[in-house]
Amino acid sequence: MACKKERRQFLKRGAALAGLAIAGVKSASAESTLPTLQFETDIAAALNPPNPPLYGVRSRFETTTRAPAEPGKPFHANRTPLQDLTGIITPNPLHFYISHGSPVPEINPQEHRLLIHGMVDRPVVLTMSDIKRLPFVSRIHFLQCAGQNYGMPYQRKPEATKTAQETHGHTSCAEWTGVPLATLLKDVGVQKGASWLVGEGAEWKKHAASIPLEKAMDEGMVVYAQNGEAIRPEQGYPLRLLLPGVEGMRNIRWLRRLYITDRPTMNEWEIRTYVMLRMDGKSRWYAWDMEPNSVITFPSGEQQLPGPGLYNVTGLAWTGTGLVGRVQMSTDGARSWNDAKLQEPVLRKAHTRFHFPWKWDGKETVIQSRCIDEWGNVQPTRAETEKMWNVGPDYFGKTDNVFPHFYASQPWRISASGKVSNAMWE
Amino acid sequence: MACKKERRQFLKRGAALAGLAIAGVKSASAESTLPTLQFETDIAAALNPPNPPLYGVRSRFETTTRAPAEPGKPFHANRTPLQDLTGIITPNPLHFYISHGSPVPEINPQEHRLLIHGMVDRPVVLTMSDIKRLPFVSRIHFLQCAGQNYGMPYQRKPEATKTAQETHGHTSCAEWTGVPLATLLKDVGVQKGASWLVGEGAEWKKHAASIPLEKAMDEGMVVYAQNGEAIRPEQGYPLRLLLPGVEGMRNIRWLRRLYITDRPTMNEWEIRTYVMLRMDGKSRWYAWDMEPNSVITFPSGEQQLPGPGLYNVTGLAWTGTGLVGRVQMSTDGARSWNDAKLQEPVLRKAHTRFHFPWKWDGKETVIQSRCIDEWGNVQPTRAETEKMWNVGPDYFGKTDNVFPHFYASQPWRISASGKVSNAMWE
Repeated sequence: MACKKERRQFLKRGAALAGLAIAGVKSASAESTLPTLQFETDIAAALNPPNPPLYGVRSRFETTTRAPAEPGKPFHANRTPLQDLTGIITPNPLHFYISHGSPVPEINPQEHRLLIHGMVDRPVVLTMSDIKRLPFVSRIHFLQCAGQNYGMPYQRKPEATKTAQETHGHTSCAEWTGVPLATLLKDVGVQKGASWLVGEGAEWKKHAASIPLEKAMDEGMVVYAQNGEAIRPEQGYPLRLLLPGVEGMRNIRWLRRLYITDRPTMNEWEIRTYVMLRMDGKSRWYAWDMEPNSVITFPSGEQQLPGPGLYNVTGLAWTGTGLVGRVQMSTDGARSWNDAKLQEPVLRKAHTRFHFPWKWDGKETVIQSRCIDEWGNVQPTRAETEKMWNVGPDYFGKTDNVFPHFYASQPWRISASGKVSNAMWE
Repeated sequence: MACKKERRQFLKRGAALAGLAIAGVKSASAESTLPTLQFETDIAAALNPPNPPLYGVRSRFETTTRAPAEPGKPFHANRTPLQDLTGIITPNPLHFYISHGSPVPEINPQEHRLLIHGMVDRPVVLTMSDIKRLPFVSRIHFLQCAGQNYGMPYQRKPEATKTAQETHGHTSCAEWTGVPLATLLKDVGVQKGASWLVGEGAEWKKHAASIPLEKAMDEGMVVYAQNGEAIRPEQGYPLRLLLPGVEGMRNIRWLRRLYITDRPTMNEWEIRTYVMLRMDGKSRWYAWDMEPNSVITFPSGEQQLPGPGLYNVTGLAWTGTGLVGRVQMSTDGARSWNDAKLQEPVLRKAHTRFHFPWKWDGKETVIQSRCIDEWGNVQPTRAETEKMWNVGPDYFGKTDNVFPHFYASQPWRISASGKVSNAMWE
């Protein structure tokens, strides 16, 4: 029988173990014999252990959080700690949050109403119970702020873009449940000539945005649940618009109004804040789908590799255009690319996890990933992005302009000492 | 312009709305004009709204919880509120929990070790960092207690089995992340003749269970994350065994030991508690896969239909044998069956949501679902279950014996007044 002494030996050895290379699981040489598995015959003695809380909490040893907002900035951005997550689901407490200048409203769902009006035959006001009684669907989709990946000037400061959370934490992925817009709009009778849908929130500033009606009808939903439970207050409780693949700010939270019209509303967010300034001084106003994007989450900025060896490089890829077709990895500063392995399930407009076994030789290098969507669209490098916009190497990195929809491949530099740092603006 | 008065009219109408039949979205007749969408030009005034917590919380209006344990019972079972969930993901705070007589241990992950020994060439003791450095996979799988669906005598009391949470809340579904057992065991070198794997937990009573090695190697994992974040304390923090599709109690929590051997350990849980007593006094000891199962979550026990009309009947189906192939619905007391619609994605050994549009004529009836797995195995009715075990109609409902792996189709009676109640033991 395995004795206590033997177990102590194992534990001692375990405690003494240092780093472990991927294939080199450390071995202990003690003999193994039949263990003393426990046979408790009197379970009555243990009838009343304390129960965990009925609405559970995480271990007190777990401390990862969303990033705090930068004080004094118009967008309170609480970014998701992508480097600490696994899989494709973002847990609700860690889903990214961006303020558009309003506090998170506290809405009593029994008092909340959704008004659908404009160019419709039968305008309606719906209660949450009305909405929850309708046929629903659940879909796993990412949600991403168009301003992420350095969209805002302050995001380009080296001290604010050290980690994957800081560079790409404006994207999260959840299972959303709600009613397809197609179902709702069929019921109200959209009139001939209607071509746009405007969503409006119930928060202080009544954030609103336009979307072409056809695009909204395609996959759009009004959603009330996220990963099985009610959507969280900062995600729009009790109701939000979900437009899969479309830039975050059009996915109106605290949704109180859907207005059907024949023109976009051209509000502040559409024609000033979330626009791309061009070199000729004009700006590109409307954009919908988020582009093929990806980020390596391990190893990523501020992490430390213990030494040369085999590593499981992993990260997330996603695209608002549909399915992730391939993810490629470069470990030599974008000179050569190799396919990473996509983890099943690969879902439409959802985060897709990729894995890439990589043997690091201990020399300084730059690693990065690129996403290729099902249509063959390739996530560009920063140099390719500059070429695409016909701008110099300083344009994206140094301009003071907001530039959403920047989705260049994220390079991480690995120093000879194993320290990982952001190489985007080198 | 839409004036405040008009909006007030809408809201008044909305407040006056009673129930809403599925296709009959209530209409309001007020004229719609261009809405007063908000244009805030000075966002500087709103620079510092209060932030949501960095680790978010749900709305204070949301109160659904796991069910409290019945005091004085050996199994502290906190069941998932299936009737309140949507989609297929169970949020971590609501994942079901069952005690096996020990309190939930509080484990510091830095001190936790996993010992792998027995018939292996290189026994090892691994730290959590060792484990997290290995190649990992994430899979969406259900986890179910073999004792659910009336497995325990006290679960058969009418007052304790009124809702879907009480009858079927011992199943949950999450995205699990960890290292395949195949990877770990390849590294330690399983010896010739080894045929069983025994997992053991670190909690007070050191719950342990056996599993054939081949089955464990097939899809088994040691997992450290659940829906993207660390597994919760009551789910085995920091490490648990996950054997997809296999009865819950073999998915050892607080996993501290994997023992490779040539025989099962025949401990209390395997030969006394989780066994099926036969009529001849013998008992069936070992069972692995959970069978094709399903439950209608709306309408389900204790819910109230507002009146005749079209309803979106919905529920969950799952099977430890692989994929859910079909789900069928009966609305006439198991006389006739029709296919329900399966919601994508349908994933192996995961909850699968089904939908079934049903026009209730207002007459009393019984509705129920049955799951058919990809191999054609059909979830039986209670009568069919009795026939299968060659027992009388009182056997499952009235015996005092524990009878896990009872998976008969769950009938819900709908009275003429729309009240829904459990019809299993009628």
